[in-house]
Amino acid sequence: MLIVMQHGAAPEEVARVVETIEEMGYQARPMPGAQRTAIGLVGNDGRVDATRLAALTGVKEIIHVTQPYKQVSREWKPESTVVEVAGGVRVGGAEITVIAGPCAVESEQQILETARLVRDHGATLLRGGAFKPRTSPYAFQGLGKKGLKLLALAREETGLPVVTEALDADGVDLVAEYADVIQIGARNMQNFPLLRRAGQSGKPVLLKRGIAATITELLLSAEYILAEDNQNVILCERGIRGFDPSTRNVFDLSAIPVVKELSHLPIVADPSHGTGRRSKVVPMARAAVAAGADGLIIEVHPQPDRALSDGEQSLFPAQFIEMMREIVAVAEAIGRKVAEPSPAPVR
Amino acid sequence: MLIVMQHGAAPEEVARVVETIEEMGYQARPMPGAQRTAIGLVGNDGRVDATRLAALTGVKEIIHVTQPYKQVSREWKPESTVVEVAGGVRVGGAEITVIAGPCAVESEQQILETARLVRDHGATLLRGGAFKPRTSPYAFQGLGKKGLKLLALAREETGLPVVTEALDADGVDLVAEYADVIQIGARNMQNFPLLRRAGQSGKPVLLKRGIAATITELLLSAEYILAEDNQNVILCERGIRGFDPSTRNVFDLSAIPVVKELSHLPIVADPSHGTGRRSKVVPMARAAVAAGADGLIIEVHPQPDRALSDGEQSLFPAQFIEMMREIVAVAEAIGRKVAEPSPAPVR
Amino acid sequence: MLIVMQHGAAPEEVARVVETIEEMGYQARPMPGAQRTAIGLVGNDGRVDATRLAALTGVKEIIHVTQPYKQVSREWKPESTVVEVAGGVRVGGAEITVIAGPCAVESEQQILETARLVRDHGATLLRGGAFKPRTSPYAFQGLGKKGLKLLALAREETGLPVVTEALDADGVDLVAEYADVIQIGARNMQNFPLLRRAGQSGKPVLLKRGIAATITELLLSAEYILAEDNQNVILCERGIRGFDPSTRNVFDLSAIPVVKELSHLPIVADPSHGTGRRSKVVPMARAAVAAGADGLIIEVHPQPDRALSDGEQSLFPAQFIEMMREIVAVAEAIGRKVAEPSPAPVR
Amino acid sequence: MLIVMQHGAAPEEVARVVETIEEMGYQARPMPGAQRTAIGLVGNDGRVDATRLAALTGVKEIIHVTQPYKQVSREWKPESTVVEVAGGVRVGGAEITVIAGPCAVESEQQILETARLVRDHGATLLRGGAFKPRTSPYAFQGLGKKGLKLLALAREETGLPVVTEALDADGVDLVAEYADVIQIGARNMQNFPLLRRAGQSGKPVLLKRGIAATITELLLSAEYILAEDNQNVILCERGIRGFDPSTRNVFDLSAIPVVKELSHLPIVADPSHGTGRRSKVVPMARAAVAAGADGLIIEVHPQPDRALSDGEQSLFPAQFIEMMREIVAVAEAIGRKVAEPSPAPVR
Repeated sequence: MLIVMQHGAAPEEVARVVETIEEMGYQARPMPGAQRTAIGLVGNDGRVDATRLAALTGVKEIIHVTQPYKQVSREWKPESTVVEVAGGVRVGGAEITVIAGPCAVESEQQILETARLVRDHGATLLRGGAFKPRTSPYAFQGLGKKGLKLLALAREETGLPVVTEALDADGVDLVAEYADVIQIGARNMQNFPLLRRAGQSGKPVLLKRGIAATITELLLSAEYILAEDNQNVILCERGIRGFDPSTRNVFDLSAIPVVKELSHLPIVADPSHGTGRRSKVVPMARAAVAAGADGLIIEVHPQPDRALSDGEQSLFPAQFIEMMREIVAVAEAIGRKVAEPSPAPVR
Repeated sequence: MLIVMQHGAAPEEVARVVETIEEMGYQARPMPGAQRTAIGLVGNDGRVDATRLAALTGVKEIIHVTQPYKQVSREWKPESTVVEVAGGVRVGGAEITVIAGPCAVESEQQILETARLVRDHGATLLRGGAFKPRTSPYAFQGLGKKGLKLLALAREETGLPVVTEALDADGVDLVAEYADVIQIGARNMQNFPLLRRAGQSGKPVLLKRGIAATITELLLSAEYILAEDNQNVILCERGIRGFDPSTRNVFDLSAIPVVKELSHLPIVADPSHGTGRRSKVVPMARAAVAAGADGLIIEVHPQPDRALSDGEQSLFPAQFIEMMREIVAVAEAIGRKVAEPSPAPVR
Repeated sequence: MLIVMQHGAAPEEVARVVETIEEMGYQARPMPGAQRTAIGLVGNDGRVDATRLAALTGVKEIIHVTQPYKQVSREWKPESTVVEVAGGVRVGGAEITVIAGPCAVESEQQILETARLVRDHGATLLRGGAFKPRTSPYAFQGLGKKGLKLLALAREETGLPVVTEALDADGVDLVAEYADVIQIGARNMQNFPLLRRAGQSGKPVLLKRGIAATITELLLSAEYILAEDNQNVILCERGIRGFDPSTRNVFDLSAIPVVKELSHLPIVADPSHGTGRRSKVVPMARAAVAAGADGLIIEVHPQPDRALSDGEQSLFPAQFIEMMREIVAVAEAIGRKVAEPSPAPVR
Repeated sequence: MLIVMQHGAAPEEVARVVETIEEMGYQARPMPGAQRTAIGLVGNDGRVDATRLAALTGVKEIIHVTQPYKQVSREWKPESTVVEVAGGVRVGGAEITVIAGPCAVESEQQILETARLVRDHGATLLRGGAFKPRTSPYAFQGLGKKGLKLLALAREETGLPVVTEALDADGVDLVAEYADVIQIGARNMQNFPLLRRAGQSGKPVLLKRGIAATITELLLSAEYILAEDNQNVILCERGIRGFDPSTRNVFDLSAIPVVKELSHLPIVADPSHGTGRRSKVVPMARAAVAAGADGLIIEVHPQPDRALSDGEQSLFPAQFIEMMREIVAVAEAIGRKVAEPSPAPVR
């Protein structure tokens, strides 16, 4: 860490920074320069809280040389993590995992029909919302516990393990009872009590990047889960907020190679939310695989034009089948393959 | 609401939209144009969930003519809301309320010293975090319940009612026991279970705008609280994420006149988070008052250079005193005045 | 076009809008609603200047149903445009064109060495800056006319046609004399005199998206060129400004399917500027091809660590060779192929 | 400048950085750390082109400690610059200068009427576009030279010096012939040939911040003008691109104290473009003055509802008069005053 002093900072201000660094248990190395002095902090173990230093008078800027996270970093664990879900399904490693299903569970018929469809065409994990975070209090909020039961039923019918979102601590316990992977949505990426509870559940966690979160912030949120001794975190790029209304979000695929370099955790991509427009999902699914994503999470609905939420970004069954065909080819082109259903039964 | 069809949409696609609108209980008015057809939805009571329509094939775009929120809107309630806090303190109306205190409660001495300082120079509400949402799991997370007790002690000593943040549902109950206003932080603006619980508490709620939230989304989050029959919501502009590292956030002061036009709720401004740099807080506090803010929320610390969090944006006592002097003058220039402490005791 | 009136707009305000629409030569269709009135403008030929209407009192919002551009749109010309460059090289159509070369022309040896390298491994167009727009007046600004001569020499040696940037009207004439494609850089996307002059040159134009330009604005800038009767426009996605310093820009690959749907013009992608980090260029080049780009524009340097500009985003020769191998495979996977050098000599 | 090496960078990579720094004529100070090595570059005179270093293998990041600009910085010239326009009008210093007029010059009557109005109510500089940069080629592009002549006529009639925009090098010469201040618009902030030519003209230059420009980039663009030996630069904050359609731009008023700290140049604010909505202009004009702006640039039109461009953000005459009344009061509140017309004739 480097503490850069303002032009013309007083010698006492420099001395105060040195003293504070030493109080914090580190070593200080002042480097006087032509225009300003900088002070190196040596011995940083990755847990220095810089705000105390930033607050000192005469300090212009704090520069982080070491990453602020630890257990999620590739420096800490060089080999890539493979998250073991239930039923032999894995995320990370050489294979690409397809997670698919409706935005929300709406009825027994809808979830069973969708689950069979996506399984028959190559998905190995079922998604579906039981608790839906909605911008408006007047929008459909999900079936709740009944939705969880329908997901469990769909798993029983199809053998697909299930990922679904939890919105609060109580929700984590309930979701953990029924589902195989707990999803933390973009709006909750910095809901720290929720992250901790999800970590404590021991279940694998799918953590979506917040709409305006940097990669560093995403990794720090994952660090909350690992700090609870739960290594089974799957990161997810799902689009960030932009200025152009031509897509719902800006699908930031560069996040994939960036995360791969910084962290050992697997990362999947969600082109449904990333673009918000059905006609853009298939090309961007191909692009995500080509960029190196470890998986895709895709919204599919038997009748998107009758969906209760996110219908405009849900694929029609025929589009999903076409997408699977295309990503199998792209995966092969880059020396990977799309994961195939395991013969092992779930649970 | 206007449903715009794609160029070349088939007549059956148009018919399907009309049919769906009617199924939803509204009237449809198709308007064929030279290049494309648009269909008006008539009878919108502000609660239409457009996603079903957006999902139909042939639909290019949904255009909202009516606002998606209801109870927060000025069309619903034309006169400005004045939120009654405890001890005669009010937010909204002709007077400008100053809320001040440290980022986090650190010790009895620190909170008492700060509370006396800010009261003596014109603040009428005390802020201070007991539960701190921190990006890194390794940063100081607040004193928790002990912090709440110290805030209550500071209220007893100074007569200032207290605003402090709750991070989850359990936290709401605890905070409601000790504090006068429950703060929902920017990271939790779309934590809907938290919004509902805060609404149910019956206490006034200070709702901060999320880092990438539109004004419409902010108002919809407030609508969650009003929908629980709690009208006492104070909105807060605290900066949005931008691309320029020269400030921590982009302090979006235009949000103030925008909110004033759309909603009857009071709005305060937080130049401490809005700029993230101590030297910018005073000019931007003046600017916020000039723009029409109903109040300010300001971080002050007896020794910012020893603060455990957000020290670089906390004012020194002398700066706070100077700020108060300046905003009193600006308030008068625009025909308002800074609220003065009430002689009435709290509780 | 739909003109939405404010809640409570006076009948005279509505009448004034109707009158103005009729003055402008179009028909007005008022639609009174429960909450507010909207007025349809019928007969819009794509050239309506809405600002006159937006300025009327009582108007809340103007909603564009028709696109504001015309000749660039796929509604105007449904079949995709193939731009014919020199020497049989084409951009658009089934094949994917690779444009490669150094950020800036630095010396005869550097440009010849790079040109041979990129040609030998599959590029069919040579890029290289002679006039460099640089943020700082103290940075290397390019060799100017000498650079153009070196590019022409490299073309002679390798048979590769040349694309290079013009910064102003005089530059267009000079560049047109030496180069085969005139590049308009991101900073100049809305330099309208430059766009017009490039259009008048009759040469193909490579138009880069501005750092904060919407797709609509990009297409309107292209419309300036087509309005000069020059249909040979190649669009280019090169990254937009974002909030995360982990990449130089946000490489917005969704722009590719968005543009493909709205316009008949070809679009190429620039992962070098899009990411700004060498280690991210190869994965994002693969992703761009998978997303449907008609070509790539890639910075390569024989010794990036000695480059005078953009060295950190320039590929090493070995990386370029690897990239070509990978994108050939991805192109095949999606049923396209990377264009091969034409046996025909240039000029 | 600090060059941070990657974790695990080889000793030869470190040696190569040291060698390159020395080749560039500076001193290198390697600082090996627990996790990675950083290398200080000493002797930086503010003109180091970091791209050569960033391109070296093993380099993770370049950290700028010294600002990349020189002549515009307050470290170079501590006292604030006051730009002398014609006729005794000044920008910078204790007084606040109001620049007002229509978006575009439309007719003799319109510009004379507006000029008299704004002069009579306290503006001391007249604005008005003769050459209009328009997103669409089909929008009104200004009267050109005829517009310049009308501006000169308005100056003759009212004594107000004139500021108007130049779009290219030829335009600079023409504008310099008729106007007193040359405006560089937001879209041209990085049109470097235009900046140079404006610098060479010797006339004061009003430089608007680009829609996605950082403050550092704005100052570097100003540096282009100062590097031509023209110190008379007036900076202008006019809003940056954001994600919320509730305003046209995000009016970034914090830029004012940020610029004041970094640079000696005066800065004015443009709430007309900053908000793009007439009803937001007056509160944000007050806020800009309170934030410390040295002036305002305001669009006024005798009949905004008949304006040929930007009508929705132009004030009605009565609103302008009200705004002047209000900002006079705010200026006094912060110990400044709004500049009054000079009795001296122009030219």
